[in-house]
Amino acid sequence: MNAIAQAAATVANPITCTLDFEQDGLQHGFLKLPYSRDDSAWGAVMIPLTVVRNGNGPTALLTGGNHGDEYEGPVALSKLAQQLQPEQVNGRVIIVPFMNTPAFQAGTRTSPIDRGNLNRSFPGRPDGSVTEKIADYFRRTLLPLADIVLDIHSGGRTLDFLPFAACHVLPDKAQQARCEAGMQAFAAPYSMRMLELDAQAMYDTAAEEQGKVFITTELGGGGTSTAKSVALAERGVRNVLIHAGILAGEVEQGETTLLDMPDGDCFIASEHDGLLEMCRDLGGTVSQGEVIARIHDIRRTGSAPVEYRARRNGLLAARHFPGLVQCGDTLAVIADVLA
Amino acid sequence: MNAIAQAAATVANPITCTLDFEQDGLQHGFLKLPYSRDDSAWGAVMIPLTVVRNGNGPTALLTGGNHGDEYEGPVALSKLAQQLQPEQVNGRVIIVPFMNTPAFQAGTRTSPIDRGNLNRSFPGRPDGSVTEKIADYFRRTLLPLADIVLDIHSGGRTLDFLPFAACHVLPDKAQQARCEAGMQAFAAPYSMRMLELDAQAMYDTAAEEQGKVFITTELGGGGTSTAKSVALAERGVRNVLIHAGILAGEVEQGETTLLDMPDGDCFIASEHDGLLEMCRDLGGTVSQGEVIARIHDIRRTGSAPVEYRARRNGLLAARHFPGLVQCGDTLAVIADVLA
Amino acid sequence: MNAIAQAAATVANPITCTLDFEQDGLQHGFLKLPYSRDDSAWGAVMIPLTVVRNGNGPTALLTGGNHGDEYEGPVALSKLAQQLQPEQVNGRVIIVPFMNTPAFQAGTRTSPIDRGNLNRSFPGRPDGSVTEKIADYFRRTLLPLADIVLDIHSGGRTLDFLPFAACHVLPDKAQQARCEAGMQAFAAPYSMRMLELDAQAMYDTAAEEQGKVFITTELGGGGTSTAKSVALAERGVRNVLIHAGILAGEVEQGETTLLDMPDGDCFIASEHDGLLEMCRDLGGTVSQGEVIARIHDIRRTGSAPVEYRARRNGLLAARHFPGLVQCGDTLAVIADVLA
Amino acid sequence: MNAIAQAAATVANPITCTLDFEQDGLQHGFLKLPYSRDDSAWGAVMIPLTVVRNGNGPTALLTGGNHGDEYEGPVALSKLAQQLQPEQVNGRVIIVPFMNTPAFQAGTRTSPIDRGNLNRSFPGRPDGSVTEKIADYFRRTLLPLADIVLDIHSGGRTLDFLPFAACHVLPDKAQQARCEAGMQAFAAPYSMRMLELDAQAMYDTAAEEQGKVFITTELGGGGTSTAKSVALAERGVRNVLIHAGILAGEVEQGETTLLDMPDGDCFIASEHDGLLEMCRDLGGTVSQGEVIARIHDIRRTGSAPVEYRARRNGLLAARHFPGLVQCGDTLAVIADVLA
Amino acid sequence: MNAIAQAAATVANPITCTLDFEQDGLQHGFLKLPYSRDDSAWGAVMIPLTVVRNGNGPTALLTGGNHGDEYEGPVALSKLAQQLQPEQVNGRVIIVPFMNTPAFQAGTRTSPIDRGNLNRSFPGRPDGSVTEKIADYFRRTLLPLADIVLDIHSGGRTLDFLPFAACHVLPDKAQQARCEAGMQAFAAPYSMRMLELDAQAMYDTAAEEQGKVFITTELGGGGTSTAKSVALAERGVRNVLIHAGILAGEVEQGETTLLDMPDGDCFIASEHDGLLEMCRDLGGTVSQGEVIARIHDIRRTGSAPVEYRARRNGLLAARHFPGLVQCGDTLAVIADVLA
Amino acid sequence: MNAIAQAAATVANPITCTLDFEQDGLQHGFLKLPYSRDDSAWGAVMIPLTVVRNGNGPTALLTGGNHGDEYEGPVALSKLAQQLQPEQVNGRVIIVPFMNTPAFQAGTRTSPIDRGNLNRSFPGRPDGSVTEKIADYFRRTLLPLADIVLDIHSGGRTLDFLPFAACHVLPDKAQQARCEAGMQAFAAPYSMRMLELDAQAMYDTAAEEQGKVFITTELGGGGTSTAKSVALAERGVRNVLIHAGILAGEVEQGETTLLDMPDGDCFIASEHDGLLEMCRDLGGTVSQGEVIARIHDIRRTGSAPVEYRARRNGLLAARHFPGLVQCGDTLAVIADVLA
Repeated sequence: MNAIAQAAATVANPITCTLDFEQDGLQHGFLKLPYSRDDSAWGAVMIPLTVVRNGNGPTALLTGGNHGDEYEGPVALSKLAQQLQPEQVNGRVIIVPFMNTPAFQAGTRTSPIDRGNLNRSFPGRPDGSVTEKIADYFRRTLLPLADIVLDIHSGGRTLDFLPFAACHVLPDKAQQARCEAGMQAFAAPYSMRMLELDAQAMYDTAAEEQGKVFITTELGGGGTSTAKSVALAERGVRNVLIHAGILAGEVEQGETTLLDMPDGDCFIASEHDGLLEMCRDLGGTVSQGEVIARIHDIRRTGSAPVEYRARRNGLLAARHFPGLVQCGDTLAVIADVLA
Repeated sequence: MNAIAQAAATVANPITCTLDFEQDGLQHGFLKLPYSRDDSAWGAVMIPLTVVRNGNGPTALLTGGNHGDEYEGPVALSKLAQQLQPEQVNGRVIIVPFMNTPAFQAGTRTSPIDRGNLNRSFPGRPDGSVTEKIADYFRRTLLPLADIVLDIHSGGRTLDFLPFAACHVLPDKAQQARCEAGMQAFAAPYSMRMLELDAQAMYDTAAEEQGKVFITTELGGGGTSTAKSVALAERGVRNVLIHAGILAGEVEQGETTLLDMPDGDCFIASEHDGLLEMCRDLGGTVSQGEVIARIHDIRRTGSAPVEYRARRNGLLAARHFPGLVQCGDTLAVIADVLA
Repeated sequence: MNAIAQAAATVANPITCTLDFEQDGLQHGFLKLPYSRDDSAWGAVMIPLTVVRNGNGPTALLTGGNHGDEYEGPVALSKLAQQLQPEQVNGRVIIVPFMNTPAFQAGTRTSPIDRGNLNRSFPGRPDGSVTEKIADYFRRTLLPLADIVLDIHSGGRTLDFLPFAACHVLPDKAQQARCEAGMQAFAAPYSMRMLELDAQAMYDTAAEEQGKVFITTELGGGGTSTAKSVALAERGVRNVLIHAGILAGEVEQGETTLLDMPDGDCFIASEHDGLLEMCRDLGGTVSQGEVIARIHDIRRTGSAPVEYRARRNGLLAARHFPGLVQCGDTLAVIADVLA
Repeated sequence: MNAIAQAAATVANPITCTLDFEQDGLQHGFLKLPYSRDDSAWGAVMIPLTVVRNGNGPTALLTGGNHGDEYEGPVALSKLAQQLQPEQVNGRVIIVPFMNTPAFQAGTRTSPIDRGNLNRSFPGRPDGSVTEKIADYFRRTLLPLADIVLDIHSGGRTLDFLPFAACHVLPDKAQQARCEAGMQAFAAPYSMRMLELDAQAMYDTAAEEQGKVFITTELGGGGTSTAKSVALAERGVRNVLIHAGILAGEVEQGETTLLDMPDGDCFIASEHDGLLEMCRDLGGTVSQGEVIARIHDIRRTGSAPVEYRARRNGLLAARHFPGLVQCGDTLAVIADVLA
Repeated sequence: MNAIAQAAATVANPITCTLDFEQDGLQHGFLKLPYSRDDSAWGAVMIPLTVVRNGNGPTALLTGGNHGDEYEGPVALSKLAQQLQPEQVNGRVIIVPFMNTPAFQAGTRTSPIDRGNLNRSFPGRPDGSVTEKIADYFRRTLLPLADIVLDIHSGGRTLDFLPFAACHVLPDKAQQARCEAGMQAFAAPYSMRMLELDAQAMYDTAAEEQGKVFITTELGGGGTSTAKSVALAERGVRNVLIHAGILAGEVEQGETTLLDMPDGDCFIASEHDGLLEMCRDLGGTVSQGEVIARIHDIRRTGSAPVEYRARRNGLLAARHFPGLVQCGDTLAVIADVLA
Repeated sequence: MNAIAQAAATVANPITCTLDFEQDGLQHGFLKLPYSRDDSAWGAVMIPLTVVRNGNGPTALLTGGNHGDEYEGPVALSKLAQQLQPEQVNGRVIIVPFMNTPAFQAGTRTSPIDRGNLNRSFPGRPDGSVTEKIADYFRRTLLPLADIVLDIHSGGRTLDFLPFAACHVLPDKAQQARCEAGMQAFAAPYSMRMLELDAQAMYDTAAEEQGKVFITTELGGGGTSTAKSVALAERGVRNVLIHAGILAGEVEQGETTLLDMPDGDCFIASEHDGLLEMCRDLGGTVSQGEVIARIHDIRRTGSAPVEYRARRNGLLAARHFPGLVQCGDTLAVIADVLA
């Protein structure tokens, strides 16, 4: 922890919670973050949450809406918050369906208040921007309450993914094994073991550094959700709570394909602006050297498109979603199939 | 034609074309529309087009990008403009892949210049807004050149459709039969016979009123395209040109399901803002009275969602795409299966 | 009616109503105006309304939110729509608390969609902008249903008024007398007889041209409402419905001061930008030649302010509300006290 | 002071003053803060100020426009800067009527440059944003010059207050007594003793930490001022200068009611969006359990409003001003009457 | 005049003038155009003007700021309005230095209110947008008062011109001769005879259709003015007033080069976006086939630029000013030298 | 280096380079800076660069586009990157024509992403904003590779300069002498010796602190470039490379006038908003007390302008470029002529 972080650690976070985490029963309420601004001098950002507690069993912290344009988490967790009853629970479930609430309510990846990308804002600051305050509160208040942490992501408006649960390669192999067991319990159609290259500012890392069992997902994308993708999320949440010993019953297993993204050759990035033509669809098999995308000129007709080729064999695991593409955008991700 | 339209008809359209429609061979160029503005006093909107001509056979006018966030048409027609050679053609093919170019280049349904929805701007005006000038030019200059008109649509960023070609119920039944034959030739997985309720300002109507064979499509949505949806568009375009006698060869038939949207009960509109949960996916069968969507509160957890139910039996042919929904949005369209 | 208006009159208005105006009982619903746009291809503007009907008595059309930043009408009419029961009514009450709904929901005088000022958009157009379509619908569909029309205004964010009900000087003196009786029934603290100089595009005029009894108000301003100003609106609405024979009971009279704004000398307009210092408050008596406002320089200290003086004796009936003022703004209105 | 503040303290503030604080006489000029931007590569923020000095008596630092949409301070201090003569003064008066000049000139609470809320930006940074540079300059350059500091606030566009002067509960009771004496001298209709819960980043705290006599006010709100509220400000300023021994004469006493806001139950916050109906007005007496506000649905008619009730007895001392309200906004503040 | 224009002609223009055009002496005042908007319900656009009159001699109407980012006219005419005295005048001088005042105050070519380009808005409409109302007022009120009309233009932010006065080729050759005499009197370094291809909506045409002597200019560009270019404007204005018999004295002649822009080959338009490299400067001689500009890629280094070549011999009379260029922009204008 | 900088120095910069700086030959590629945002979750800022290397000779780092609206550098360096061949080079040339690429592509001084002014962002931060990351990468990765650094500036959209090369007064006189030799080699028409008053956050300082030979320029302004100004830049670049021993040949000398800006009296700043009239042009001689600019009122005609006078003798070396001016803008810079 550097000098800035040390200084920040001495300041109290201004967020207050309208609920009592130690109280048994079902509570719906808010995290309240004072936010003085032009259109409300004494206003606040209100982050809805639900706490269901029954005795001293383990605690699960379930989050959606870490990015504001990803919908499987918000739908599945909103439904859970409506349905879950204390008598079903052994321990505690903390449900935050719209983690970056300002981003979620705007339908954008980042916060309209400070353009903060919550998952690039950890460890956060109690005296920073609105998004940094939220990060600091999760890191210093909510994560310490949890034994197991599930953060549900999808691709958002600009990416589309094969549906997978994921865990990270961690220095503590025992912790990694616990995370992998959680990922397996989620039972998504695909499971991904990720070596995160730039993990420094992520929620994942903040949770893992506290030794938590941390599971994340990518369940689709495009800024939408479907009956099918929501069903995956609901089953995964239920399975994880059963796996954690909080809900009774058996984990409902499904078939899963184990994937890996071992190095930078998996990622194809665009060096052009233009109209994107994907030549393979998600889940399709690709071979090294094959054209997987073309970019066409949007200023004129008749000029040849630029071709992008696969640099390795694998399976198309993710793609740029919008029909137009900009220089620098990730066009495609090709994953290894492990099993 | 009312007084306003009559007045407009006497004014010349300021758009000029850098190509000669009567010249044999392959030409790539622009429709040039002068547009004086803050960041360019003597600037212009440049709409790319390609003309391929070989003798006096029939003329096909092929368009994409009528709405700027629909991508199957732009990709398939950009590729056609790159590949089509005069010697393959009998007659003439006019290709305008990005009809509302300012909207297309911005990636939005409507034009960033005047927020014009081109397909609600006909008959247009030569002295109107930029979008109205484009409409007037298509109506008075390009449509009269054509025998057959194919306008390729998809759902755009905010709608998703089953892939279908479509034609309208027309007063002239001989014309309608020619249009239906064109629709069948396109050979999309679904084919839709539409009674357009509010057709007054559409390109479709401008073409049909001139007696043209007019075919339109909806080939997906969400503001993206896939390898699969582009392949449908490319096959359809080729089939239509063969059907029209412009390309040699045989129409490549596929299986198609004939659909109908006979009345207002097909459309489910939202009366709430919130987080959308679709309970059926595109192509799924629905029964009258069944819950097909729920809208969840985005301000708090724990409150019951609003349920929307089907008012008729049928098949889910279209849906609202984004994860959030606003009061007034069309949530779902349920079509009759005719065959 | 000129050529444009004649052309427009032959086009159907695209707004549909989810209610049946001829049905007895209490109905809550919407005026639905299709509005295709970037963030909803098949969306709609939804204008909430309530109809309460009991037999064939007279019809009152009650509106608020003609300007979107005026709140006494929306509050009083929302409450009426929640409380009014068919059995209390003889005839029909049509309640539209948020007439220009897009403006009202944005909290702005004009519509965020087209910057339309609804009360400067009459007679409207069925094929015009969103605001013009709303105006056309009121003129051609709702006003013809009404016998008495009450449109509740306040000053909005940028003006503040003494609370008054008003009627216009009309060519038909019998109609004017009926309007004055309605204004008296409203029983505001002040009553204003207005000679509207620029009435051409107003809702008022559209109603008066159809021979309706038309009453309008200004009940405060600043973009807020108070317990006191809402009570005035509620009493006025109830009084007007009793006066019209729709509600039973007696009009609750209050003391009212009759005012007049006979000519242009009543209006003091700013020819400077700056910081406004009002030297008199609303309701204060002013004498010709007296300084009623100063404008101070906001770029520097120490320079003398510009002084604005009254050009007539009277009572300060309206003022510019915000603390800053621009060249061209109306600073103050001085009214004659008639009684 | 943490590591960040220590680092900052070694950097010179780039603001220069065009005046000489040590020179006798009347000077009008600017604080000049270089601000390089797209529309002026070598531009500056210019903060107007006036210094009136006559010998070595005490120094008063008088500020308005700390928030840019509050007008009693700017008007009263602009007038003082125009009128005050050195010969009237014993010591020095530093007048900054528009403390956050960019915010004031835009008419907004926060700065349009960096959205900085000046009164949440202390201690500031010499190498930070424009607002942070202003804060640092006040803290390190202007406050050390002062013996007594008066910062005139009102509610701004989004709050409305009973007019009061205020001082804080301070650890140094002798200092607190001096501040209370200053507050009493101001002689507003109400006087408020405040226990500031979140004072860390306020100008108030920066002044108090330097041992200054600090007085603040809330003199109305809504983003306007009135003849009456400006008169209160002018009398208060004159009184404070007399009290400080800088102006000759007697403090002009008025009747004042002493108020207290002892705990969080004083504040009523909204958990809903909608149309606000206040059921009590400023200065009104409220009882615990009483409905003081309702929030009505702006999406539909006929649904019941949400009711907000007082959690304690008292007097309505502040309210949300605009007609619409958002989840998280402070609806009302209920104060104890001490005397 | 078509049906729309005829309808418009029966409506009074809402603009009022605070001055009396028939009164002798010096008057400074405003054209006042009521403009109700979100930030001022009862606001107005205020267009400053000066009238200097002395008896019944001829009337000159002098305008600058027709486009809001052109500065020679506004500076020269502001100075004239400050300096001209009635006793110097025979007849009347009407000076409007900032014709499209909202555009001028924003520093943009078009109006920030409605994006109206005033010089493409004639004949205007009394019930149209703000810019259309200004056009209608000039056409129906100010132009009929004038004998000679001088409208001072420059290139604005996005064009740069050799300094010239200009007149049009007109059907009435006697009128054309009077205009040419006026152009010669202006005595700019260059004089341009223009065949306007798209004159329909220009102020020029509105003036010429009323038989007025009309002179226009282009005196530089880039959104600036220089001591040199302002001196040209001031001399030209004085010369034109002397030529018209309004000021006494002799026209101060200078050397002028007569230019012509006979056809479309004079204009070089860009078909690419990018970084502009001009290979010739204003006033330079160019030969057919010569490279006059290159456009470089701004997305990458190392790719060859696109070259644009002259299609005729001549002199570089105008160029695109900004360093970046968009597809459709006019890069350069090459004029014929007549004398 | 303070605590913050020390903390930052331990974090790796996320920018990667697609080229190998140690490889002989010609390479075109990108600096790739990951940038996750609403319109591209996995996007990147791509900064084009070219490296030409031939053996172990000295390294020159050549940059343009440090401010995004200055064009001589981008044009001259784009051309150099297209033309320079390894066999011409002894050592290495690193060419970054668009240093602040987001600003350059937007045509603005500062970055549209974070409004960062790159030349006020040093030393930068690897975990800061996009602009701060770029600064950190130049400081810690590119500058250490260089022996000589040339950063080509112009005035941008809002300033205009006499064309000069410049170096700074440095504490190390031997280094200063090497810089002056480089400046002389550039051979601009003017050469400026600058005592930078506020150099703390500049690229210049970052280079000089590492002991590099650093040369900067101002080659014109207004947001454009001309054939003439680009020729100056191209000659200067070539000369500097020859001077450094990287290119063969002789420095092409030109006549240069040596200038100095010794103190604050050189700068004339505006204290008013309005219409700017410059009374002297660039390169003109001015005398103390002479009027060099006037500012006219844009709200009304007939009021006297404010006059600004020279406070010293000299030559007009720079001016505010746009036709309008704001309070705080630098109007003019008057330089001493040394030789």
